[in-house]
Amino acid sequence: MEIPYKIYLSEDEIPRAWYNVRADMKVKPAPLLVPSTLKPATAEDLGHVFCDELVKQELDNDHAFIEIPEDIRNFYKMYRPSPLVRAYCLERALGTPAHIYYKFEGNNTSGSHKLNSAIAQAYYAKKQGLKGVTTETGAGQWGTALSMATAYFGLDCKVYMVKVSYEQKPFRREVMRTYGASVTPSPSDTTNVGRAILAEHPGTTGSLGCAISEAVETAVSNDGYRYVLGSVLNQVLLHQSVIGLETKTALDKYGIKADVIIGCAGGGSNLGGLISPFVGQKLRGEADYQIIAVEPASCPSFTRGKYAYDFCDTGRVCPLAKMYTLGSNFIPSANHAGGLRYHGMSSTLSELYHQGLMEARSVEQTSVFDAAVQFARVEGILPAPESSHAIRVAIDEALKCKETGEAKNIVFGLTGTGYFDLVAYQKYNDHQMSDYIPTDEELQKSLAQLPKVEN
Amino acid sequence: MEIPYKIYLSEDEIPRAWYNVRADMKVKPAPLLVPSTLKPATAEDLGHVFCDELVKQELDNDHAFIEIPEDIRNFYKMYRPSPLVRAYCLERALGTPAHIYYKFEGNNTSGSHKLNSAIAQAYYAKKQGLKGVTTETGAGQWGTALSMATAYFGLDCKVYMVKVSYEQKPFRREVMRTYGASVTPSPSDTTNVGRAILAEHPGTTGSLGCAISEAVETAVSNDGYRYVLGSVLNQVLLHQSVIGLETKTALDKYGIKADVIIGCAGGGSNLGGLISPFVGQKLRGEADYQIIAVEPASCPSFTRGKYAYDFCDTGRVCPLAKMYTLGSNFIPSANHAGGLRYHGMSSTLSELYHQGLMEARSVEQTSVFDAAVQFARVEGILPAPESSHAIRVAIDEALKCKETGEAKNIVFGLTGTGYFDLVAYQKYNDHQMSDYIPTDEELQKSLAQLPKVEN
Repeated sequence: MEIPYKIYLSEDEIPRAWYNVRADMKVKPAPLLVPSTLKPATAEDLGHVFCDELVKQELDNDHAFIEIPEDIRNFYKMYRPSPLVRAYCLERALGTPAHIYYKFEGNNTSGSHKLNSAIAQAYYAKKQGLKGVTTETGAGQWGTALSMATAYFGLDCKVYMVKVSYEQKPFRREVMRTYGASVTPSPSDTTNVGRAILAEHPGTTGSLGCAISEAVETAVSNDGYRYVLGSVLNQVLLHQSVIGLETKTALDKYGIKADVIIGCAGGGSNLGGLISPFVGQKLRGEADYQIIAVEPASCPSFTRGKYAYDFCDTGRVCPLAKMYTLGSNFIPSANHAGGLRYHGMSSTLSELYHQGLMEARSVEQTSVFDAAVQFARVEGILPAPESSHAIRVAIDEALKCKETGEAKNIVFGLTGTGYFDLVAYQKYNDHQMSDYIPTDEELQKSLAQLPKVEN
Repeated sequence: MEIPYKIYLSEDEIPRAWYNVRADMKVKPAPLLVPSTLKPATAEDLGHVFCDELVKQELDNDHAFIEIPEDIRNFYKMYRPSPLVRAYCLERALGTPAHIYYKFEGNNTSGSHKLNSAIAQAYYAKKQGLKGVTTETGAGQWGTALSMATAYFGLDCKVYMVKVSYEQKPFRREVMRTYGASVTPSPSDTTNVGRAILAEHPGTTGSLGCAISEAVETAVSNDGYRYVLGSVLNQVLLHQSVIGLETKTALDKYGIKADVIIGCAGGGSNLGGLISPFVGQKLRGEADYQIIAVEPASCPSFTRGKYAYDFCDTGRVCPLAKMYTLGSNFIPSANHAGGLRYHGMSSTLSELYHQGLMEARSVEQTSVFDAAVQFARVEGILPAPESSHAIRVAIDEALKCKETGEAKNIVFGLTGTGYFDLVAYQKYNDHQMSDYIPTDEELQKSLAQLPKVEN
């Protein structure tokens, strides 16, 4: 059967249930801990912060499949199934015998896979009768996705945007406003935690950890509001499993067996979603795959972090998570251009990595942009810097195949487009992009502040 | 048969030939005239400016179908067939019995339909053994599309970008640079015509007509270069017929008969492409459709222009075209935010309009952005301001159906996304957008400068 450039499934083939990889894990991801007691968080503890149904999903280690409500599936139909693209042009340009496929999640206005979870979280908030939700956003992909989702369901949406991004990415901010969200630069004087941070660091340009703290505080101190998060959490990986499920359906349909599966890793939402059905097969002993997480050398939580309980936010108002972490005060160096800048990693992925079910590689950003531009010129799509981490390693693997003559099937996640990342591309085009790898001393310093918790 | 949210044809269903509506016109569009002699331009005249094969297509009034070369079809497969979307969510929001469909051309990095012709023009340039091509761009959609196409075929690409856009849209510029194009703000001191304009108007921020003149001069004065244009020309409408052909195939597949077909109109590339197979049916007496061209009230060439020969560019180096025109010195008022700002209209569309085969409406930009935001919030896609002209009239027609109870099938062209138009959206969100309709006196003044040509 000839493989088309783009494998489109029909709308009937959008998954009817999300896949929960935790159900197939013998050793489960470590539970979240309440910061004040360091005891595992219960549904009641989490219910102050998150919507009830999402809390259930967060804590559910048992059910392998959780039905996708009809309203969410209908929204998915506006931009899903996303295409699984055969990178014929890239293969030709590389002269590789490998077959390269990418699952492209960028064909929607949020520009990334984030919408898959945003619409689910907005749906459950609406169903619970809430007035609105709060969240943080860094580069703005998640905030944009959430504002689209809340506009669809008529919910209020309060976004805390890391101040440096708020100023440098006015267009992302404007998309959110167009979808009716209010956007506040963080740290702000609208919260206690924001005012405290501003008092201590008057000139600060903010961080994700700080914006999370402000969003959580706003949610718990306003009636009818809950906090929502675009990555890291179990529930987010659950929703993102649509990426992997569709990918697997498309591959199966054409009788393609993936050899290598590659995804970029920041908090883990895309990677976790892409790989979950394949990891499920590995866990059940049904199939084997080489799975590679790719992270920036400037924010290397998998490859150089510690597997330990840590704070999820700067203000320490969130539950603690056991994860590969660089320490909650770690901030990537100023020359780091893209996303993937969170200090920790999804607990589920951390446990899978710990169990040896996948490997991790770190790459430097100049080589990431080399790959991005090479890809853009032959495949037509200008990729997000985040996604380009996966492109880098996909190209590296394809070039290895060229040496060995192996015709491997390489599958990677192209999470989004780079239309709002042109400042970074400009730096690259002007040869002003540089690399930075944190020293061992720097990492030891930020890791020294890990909380004292029995692991 | 249940109609999905998105009708995707298979890659086999990408047209194998473009459709040339001129072949079915009894009265053909008026020929281009050489500016120095005012005689109809021959293939030899045009061959100095355009690629040989494109000149053939430009002058071909006889062949109804022109085969699409395999290399172009393969490139099309990277982003085509584009989806024909059933706007279920918009229908629900409007409470209309009408069925609304839109052909969405924005799922590619150029963000619009412009890529359909860019890849064809780059292909023929490559086939002729040229070194590169020159062009102008206003808002940047066409320049981006062309830079993607020339990168694919390894051609040099020199873009003259209207200075005001060059400064206000640095990100569009950066996309072009990423694809290897050189981008020069126009007017520039790199051409005679640019230097003359700068001497006469030192502070000018440029215009499309001026950038065209510079691009043409650069093409004819450099060995191995030709000029390419993204709209207005017959060849461009020919390439853009893939939009209409795919739309018709999708509608036929589901047994849907369009009642109203709506497209925005600037130079006419999208509108001409969308409607051509349907107009062909009208011309052959096989079917009838209501066809509506939508243009900005601030640049109303169809609704308030004169059908006459006019200059296509400010420097008067290009052939003259017979078209609905506002006069080659007409420039929309400063508060006009989007594209669709060319003073004239495709000769083919002008003749079809003159023959009464379609109607035209002008709309004011505030109401266009009202429609854009309403559409974005329910259909998920943030539309380009240009495309939103068609959305405005599609919504108006759907609301009429609500009054009359008619379940009309309304089809419109959604030419692209608004990701690089956030300055305009910001104005709208901040309630700082205004409307302007040129006075009769202003139009009389610009029309008084039409060249003296027997019509």
